Amino acid sequence: MKILVLNCGSSSLKYQLINMENETVMAKGLCERIGIENSSFEHKNFDGQKIKKEANMKNHEDAVKIVINNLLDENFGVIKDIKEIDAVGHRVLHGGKYFSEPVLIDQKVKDAIRDCFILGPLHNPSNLIGIETCERLMPDIKQVAVFDTAFHQTMPEKAFIYALPYEYYKENNIRRYGFHGTSHKFVAMRISEILQNNNLKLITCHLGNGSSVCAIKNNKCVDTSMGLTPLEGLAMGTRCGDIDPAIIKFLAHQKNFNIDEIDNILNKKSGVLGISQVSSDFRDVEKAAQNNNYQAKLALEIFYYRCAKYIGAYAAALNGIDVIAFTAGLGENSPETREAICNYLNYLGVEIDKEKNNSRGKEVEISNQNSRVKVFVVPTNEELMIARETLNLIK
Amino acid sequence: MKILVLNCGSSSLKYQLINMENETVMAKGLCERIGIENSSFEHKNFDGQKIKKEANMKNHEDAVKIVINNLLDENFGVIKDIKEIDAVGHRVLHGGKYFSEPVLIDQKVKDAIRDCFILGPLHNPSNLIGIETCERLMPDIKQVAVFDTAFHQTMPEKAFIYALPYEYYKENNIRRYGFHGTSHKFVAMRISEILQNNNLKLITCHLGNGSSVCAIKNNKCVDTSMGLTPLEGLAMGTRCGDIDPAIIKFLAHQKNFNIDEIDNILNKKSGVLGISQVSSDFRDVEKAAQNNNYQAKLALEIFYYRCAKYIGAYAAALNGIDVIAFTAGLGENSPETREAICNYLNYLGVEIDKEKNNSRGKEVEISNQNSRVKVFVVPTNEELMIARETLNLIK
Repeated sequence: MKILVLNCGSSSLKYQLINMENETVMAKGLCERIGIENSSFEHKNFDGQKIKKEANMKNHEDAVKIVINNLLDENFGVIKDIKEIDAVGHRVLHGGKYFSEPVLIDQKVKDAIRDCFILGPLHNPSNLIGIETCERLMPDIKQVAVFDTAFHQTMPEKAFIYALPYEYYKENNIRRYGFHGTSHKFVAMRISEILQNNNLKLITCHLGNGSSVCAIKNNKCVDTSMGLTPLEGLAMGTRCGDIDPAIIKFLAHQKNFNIDEIDNILNKKSGVLGISQVSSDFRDVEKAAQNNNYQAKLALEIFYYRCAKYIGAYAAALNGIDVIAFTAGLGENSPETREAICNYLNYLGVEIDKEKNNSRGKEVEISNQNSRVKVFVVPTNEELMIARETLNLIK
Repeated sequence: MKILVLNCGSSSLKYQLINMENETVMAKGLCERIGIENSSFEHKNFDGQKIKKEANMKNHEDAVKIVINNLLDENFGVIKDIKEIDAVGHRVLHGGKYFSEPVLIDQKVKDAIRDCFILGPLHNPSNLIGIETCERLMPDIKQVAVFDTAFHQTMPEKAFIYALPYEYYKENNIRRYGFHGTSHKFVAMRISEILQNNNLKLITCHLGNGSSVCAIKNNKCVDTSMGLTPLEGLAMGTRCGDIDPAIIKFLAHQKNFNIDEIDNILNKKSGVLGISQVSSDFRDVEKAAQNNNYQAKLALEIFYYRCAKYIGAYAAALNGIDVIAFTAGLGENSPETREAICNYLNYLGVEIDKEKNNSRGKEVEISNQNSRVKVFVVPTNEELMIARETLNLIK
């Protein structure tokens, strides 16, 4: 069984071809700057052989064609015939209220994805083009959609309804959806597996350039920090996360910005980039902080503090916790981040083993034997999760 | 010592004349609809004798004159000469970054209050008119300003800096300020007094039509839920509290609202009113919920849940808590609210004595003997706190 995983971003396309017999990556790659000048792709096969080229990609359809050509390429490819691909798993950003599970794609599914354009205006249209292109190029191959929002659909209303006029929820679908669902689910399943326990109170912290926290009970999401969009919640690389909503009016009147300009600032010029004025890349900010840059130190402090507060809030949502798990770029690779966050949590009985915590990119339990809450690092693998969900559906 | 406490709202004026020998209220009253047709006042003296009258009050200056006439009134008044008033304590909404303590008013203070008009556009101008009118009418009497934001000025930067471009803080003073400071401080001082301990980790919950939570360590505020304005934080009577900030752009584009219309909705048509579509008054919503109104039940559930999450978050901010205190309309008078919130907090060792909790408007410890966290109800008294602060300053 070979499954192709496609993740069409607003101007990018990431892909992996995964052999499901042993869950290994046969080839993977990235198309960038789709629809912009100087678009390019990089493709790598399981031997580590690479091609990197500029290529004119006017749209995601062009990009999907390049992906398939790469997979079939005489020198760098890994399959001889497109029919060797058993199914395609598409990452779709926004499933709105329609999807709480991955689904086999049919016309109704595509209509629903289109219905959610308004909720995911930068991603859902590209996702749909990716799907339709694959349908045309490989008409006999099953297509599966795996939604970033699906895992969070088990949240109770008290967690997903905003304190706004109720008709905005009923008529305009304004509610908390949550994102990074595939990652939170992957980590939750892995923790269940490690501890051989499906009845855990678990908080998963997906900390990267985009970050979110998720409260999980018995493998089901009960709350998460991202909302209608991925802007809400933690301070992130460039996103502000939670702010006083009145700040938007204040900025509009004080700085004469219009609402789209403000939206752009809140999404792209805020977060640790905005506070530190150094970078949106945490590695740069950590380096500057080590060199005693005041705003860089402050940005990290705020990031840690707000993450600790979310863990605290979700401990209340769950009325106690058994496990905390860190994942994604920072969560997997920054012992400093994990230690700084856990330092707030001694009152929950969290105790870290500094030596065990001093690891990067590996699955490891970092709590010590006395810790009343187990703390783990679990490297996430959204592509593999999408491939597994796809396999489940076509079996 | 007699101290007059004035609280000038955007179109109202509340006042109390307090005898500080025994901290009793000699007279109190309320002017309403100032600057609107059918303005009226109600004045009550310590005997409970009342006058209630329509009166033409074009502005807060007119209202202050009526207050003084009432206090001197032959039948309903309580003093013979204006010189019997030793000082006036003014509640001022926004002290910005300038004031972390109450202050004797001079020209510099008035300039700073004016500087903060932009941060408190509905209240600070009325507050200043109240001050200037008193200065004219009682030129020999000391005037003191007590700021709603002052108590929160001890917050560390990690709690008050938003993850926005740093220059918005430096240049435009956009940061968390917090409100209800006088109430949180009053309750914190009372808890210290009851427990004879100034080194407590305390969370105060001011729950009324406007609501906020405050994390306090050693009698100093370390975090609070309201922000640049009183819109942020909990779900309130009519205010939305925390939302995904991207919702504002979404509403602008979906509903064709402009930014001021949205601001009005978020401040006046949201919160439990918005969710329940019953009322902004929690008593009405509680009644509807008892009658099984679905949205009313949901509104209360959301209110409780979000309050519990803030307590959880502040338990992390404080790395553990000793005491939780409830105050203000709901906090003092709704056993259901207190119980529902505390039910989330067993993991912290919170245990409520149902019988003790079944009290209204009284100072009482409602936790049982086994509770690892003490839980109190402390009726707030902002007017008395303002009078005490005023007395401290003129002594």
